[in-house]
Amino acid sequence: MSPVITFGGLLGEATEGRISAIESLFGASLTGIAYSLFAGQPLTILGSTGPVLVFEKILFKFCKEYGLSYLSLRTCIGLWTAFLCILLVATDASSLVCYITRFTEEAFASLICIIFIYEALEKLLHLGEHYPFNKNNNLDKLTTYSCACVEPSDPANGTMKFWEVNNITASEIYWEALEVKDCIEKRGEFVGTACGPHGPYVPDVLFWCVILFFSTVVMSAFLKEFKFSNYFPTKVRSIISDFAVFITILTMVLVDYALGIPSPKLKVPNVFKPTRDDRGWFINPLGPNPWWTAVITVVPALLCTILIFMDQQITAVIINRKENKLKKGCGYHLDLLMVGIMLGVCSLMGLPWFVAATVLSITHVNSLKLESECSAPGEQPKFLGIREQRVTGLMIFMLMGSSVFMTSMLKFIPMPVLYGVFLYMGASSLRGIQFFDRITLFGMPAKHQPDFIYLRHVPLRKVHLFTVIQLSCLILLWVIKTSRAAIVFPMMVLALVFIRKLMDCIFTKRELSWLDDLMPESKKKKLEDTEEEEEQSILAEDEAVVQVPLGEYQGIPIINITDEMSKGSFGNTWNAND
Amino acid sequence: MSPVITFGGLLGEATEGRISAIESLFGASLTGIAYSLFAGQPLTILGSTGPVLVFEKILFKFCKEYGLSYLSLRTCIGLWTAFLCILLVATDASSLVCYITRFTEEAFASLICIIFIYEALEKLLHLGEHYPFNKNNNLDKLTTYSCACVEPSDPANGTMKFWEVNNITASEIYWEALEVKDCIEKRGEFVGTACGPHGPYVPDVLFWCVILFFSTVVMSAFLKEFKFSNYFPTKVRSIISDFAVFITILTMVLVDYALGIPSPKLKVPNVFKPTRDDRGWFINPLGPNPWWTAVITVVPALLCTILIFMDQQITAVIINRKENKLKKGCGYHLDLLMVGIMLGVCSLMGLPWFVAATVLSITHVNSLKLESECSAPGEQPKFLGIREQRVTGLMIFMLMGSSVFMTSMLKFIPMPVLYGVFLYMGASSLRGIQFFDRITLFGMPAKHQPDFIYLRHVPLRKVHLFTVIQLSCLILLWVIKTSRAAIVFPMMVLALVFIRKLMDCIFTKRELSWLDDLMPESKKKKLEDTEEEEEQSILAEDEAVVQVPLGEYQGIPIINITDEMSKGSFGNTWNAND
Repeated sequence: MSPVITFGGLLGEATEGRISAIESLFGASLTGIAYSLFAGQPLTILGSTGPVLVFEKILFKFCKEYGLSYLSLRTCIGLWTAFLCILLVATDASSLVCYITRFTEEAFASLICIIFIYEALEKLLHLGEHYPFNKNNNLDKLTTYSCACVEPSDPANGTMKFWEVNNITASEIYWEALEVKDCIEKRGEFVGTACGPHGPYVPDVLFWCVILFFSTVVMSAFLKEFKFSNYFPTKVRSIISDFAVFITILTMVLVDYALGIPSPKLKVPNVFKPTRDDRGWFINPLGPNPWWTAVITVVPALLCTILIFMDQQITAVIINRKENKLKKGCGYHLDLLMVGIMLGVCSLMGLPWFVAATVLSITHVNSLKLESECSAPGEQPKFLGIREQRVTGLMIFMLMGSSVFMTSMLKFIPMPVLYGVFLYMGASSLRGIQFFDRITLFGMPAKHQPDFIYLRHVPLRKVHLFTVIQLSCLILLWVIKTSRAAIVFPMMVLALVFIRKLMDCIFTKRELSWLDDLMPESKKKKLEDTEEEEEQSILAEDEAVVQVPLGEYQGIPIINITDEMSKGSFGNTWNAND
Repeated sequence: MSPVITFGGLLGEATEGRISAIESLFGASLTGIAYSLFAGQPLTILGSTGPVLVFEKILFKFCKEYGLSYLSLRTCIGLWTAFLCILLVATDASSLVCYITRFTEEAFASLICIIFIYEALEKLLHLGEHYPFNKNNNLDKLTTYSCACVEPSDPANGTMKFWEVNNITASEIYWEALEVKDCIEKRGEFVGTACGPHGPYVPDVLFWCVILFFSTVVMSAFLKEFKFSNYFPTKVRSIISDFAVFITILTMVLVDYALGIPSPKLKVPNVFKPTRDDRGWFINPLGPNPWWTAVITVVPALLCTILIFMDQQITAVIINRKENKLKKGCGYHLDLLMVGIMLGVCSLMGLPWFVAATVLSITHVNSLKLESECSAPGEQPKFLGIREQRVTGLMIFMLMGSSVFMTSMLKFIPMPVLYGVFLYMGASSLRGIQFFDRITLFGMPAKHQPDFIYLRHVPLRKVHLFTVIQLSCLILLWVIKTSRAAIVFPMMVLALVFIRKLMDCIFTKRELSWLDDLMPESKKKKLEDTEEEEEQSILAEDEAVVQVPLGEYQGIPIINITDEMSKGSFGNTWNAND
């Protein structure tokens, strides 16, 4: 629930409240329910993902710059995108999925994570503008500190005009009694030792937000990790771990409420209606925009289609990986069709665009894992498959929809807590990405390198080269995203596929098969180890029975510690010579 | 350096500035140099430890209550204590050391750690009183917020009298222009929406302190742990780890300076002289106190002697443990004599009492470890011994003394950073204490319990009983420390030894030998494992050569993982079934 609300909040900020919490929740619920019911792969969870959000942000900036109506233009683009998506379905474009390799997938996933993290930190920094603090407080002079509203001593021309238009007679107002908002509205001036550049300094709020933010990050990470601690029975631990984010948010809300600092809260309306008065539930695709916008929007729609196609297909590829042992068939075409149709509906109603959310979908699938009940101590439970059904998805989005009516509770959630959840989600998703494992190799002396399977077969120089290329792509993506050419950003995402194709010239096929394979690390290692074992056991059979006195074996570690190492926890003790 | 300054600060607060930073540094330097030169065991580092500090605090409270001169009374007690210590040396009391078992040692060490942690958190909470924040800020009304000093509308009798005595005519003062300190001094009243109970609300400072405090804790812990990470070469890692606390303090000072929030800083005078004007470098043992205080102080001196004796002997026992492979002899008597003499000198000069500091001494010894240079990869370096000398100790205390002349730099250190270092030191010292390992066993299901050697030989029920008794002792100690009977607190520390003696009735000798043995865990385990191995190898020899096909062995882990587990890092992955 919280991620969508957060995205709603983000969306609200990205579009200056034109699409906000209520619309986000309603849209998510509507799209999600439709998808869960009719899509080919009901395990996918829809959400408002990073790249699409970035696209919307760029679009909004563009509209503002050229004086166009954002919502109308967006509806046009949305309808075109929906059309293009359906066209893609009709032309069997989903078969292009085979070109999406781990290289592209991880670069895209990393981008999503980095956007998460960056947005969270950016929002936190932005709070510093909203809540300025006095850097040069003299605690002994606090008695003389104040910041009052006064009549501008030398009003600018703009101010004079504003007063004239709004029938304000400056001399008739009792300026000193005005509150902050009124003072800003009436173009008063702030004078006093407790005044910042745009109004009075706000005490405590900024630092309290910082505390809330980092407490949320640390607490959710700690509670999530609690599953692997040694305390309490398994049941308790897994409950705490599963509800880690929920428990964290609840705690933070209570602490924040108890302390009473006026931190910025989630803005949610009390009634179920469009958030702004100047928009209804349906948006006119043309509206105040000139007629040719309806035609020209096909260009950004093309870009948007790329993003949505990539998002959808990459998520589908991940969900349908062999290791998940799915029994029911996948539905690349049907899924894209559903997304396309709902995109049209959402655009017409001015709701956020919901596409397959990689991180949330993986979490969903993981939570549905069916494992054998093991009885022998130490035996690892066997993965049997996924509980494939349509109920969980449906329930998630129905609950999300009903949260529209819980807004009286939601408005107690401080924004920094949601930003913290954001940062946590971004950072924790980075962990599973091989690309980041490879980046860490740069700072690691050879002897400490974990036993990654590709390090066994590819020279380190080549591994580094692969990482550098991937990293350059990511940096280029980021630069484009933030530059004035931001609108071509989706093209660059697509370009990743071509760059990967070009890499066939630099790397041998064998190297790429190790570096750019979707098969999970552990599985490959197991395969290889089994092969070796077989070889050795054949060898052993050849030499008949090898005679080994048992005593000699006690001291020599023959455990397969590589598995432990790849989990990353062994490193701590590996050279702990105490 | 920093711990002593912190203790100086603490001491200053405990004694309302009667003994403060300059005296602490000078005293530490003086005592430390003398000890390093002449003691039997120069590896011990002296410091102002928790229990002694608690005793001084209690003493100060007592003096205030009965209107006695603290410094004079303290000098009397110090001189008596010095005499008693020398008496103990003369009567060969150090031989009583044999009654100090792990039970007593760990209870005492835990107490020190808990005092560290408690003091740090208490100081942080106290900041909330000094820097009150407005819980009910209305951000929109900030323009109307102020807190001015005004003439008391209805002055109390005490205020009237105060004015009369100090020749203050209330009507002649321009109250509104007074700064906070002046206003409080002249008994003005604070009126306004930004006023707390005792003065204006202080913006930002408290929350900034909280941020500094926890950042310090997290950063020093992270940098200290960096030694065991996989990044960077060993040299870089160990440098970062060794200077973790220093790097942290430096970073925090820079950040604090850059931000400019007026957080409370370390108070250090600019010149080398006694901190207060009403005291010189030498203190009169009687001073304004009645003559009989010189006699009666023998009673608190007895209590103080117990503390100092315990502190000294426990530290000495730990330093001289067999596992340290010290070659030069120890000097229980000479050490105590040195401490006794310096105690007398310090008391006469009104300096803090410096005794053997357990935590710092262990750190010192660890840093002097001599290890074999290993060449084969994976081979653990062998511990060869300790570089026993008098140079390091001497240098430490000479540098400490010279820091008296660096006070212009020291005054940039924010107090919350030092409190953070405090908390970190306390919390990190808890780790090596077996008592805390046993406490965690309460929350651990049997299957997750680490392979502690005593769990192999003592029933869990009995282990828990042992822990409960130890815990009760600790709680009792704490209750006494905070109650009105605080002054007998050292007696209770001594009582620990007797309680341990009583436990001979509840536990068998065999059980106690496992639970209450000073030999380190790993060594015992090694011994036992070797014994078993020998047994088995004899068995194996009896049965001639056992025939085992090599192939079968590949899958079965025969590593001795107990060692890894006891280091506590294995738990994370042990049941990580992903």
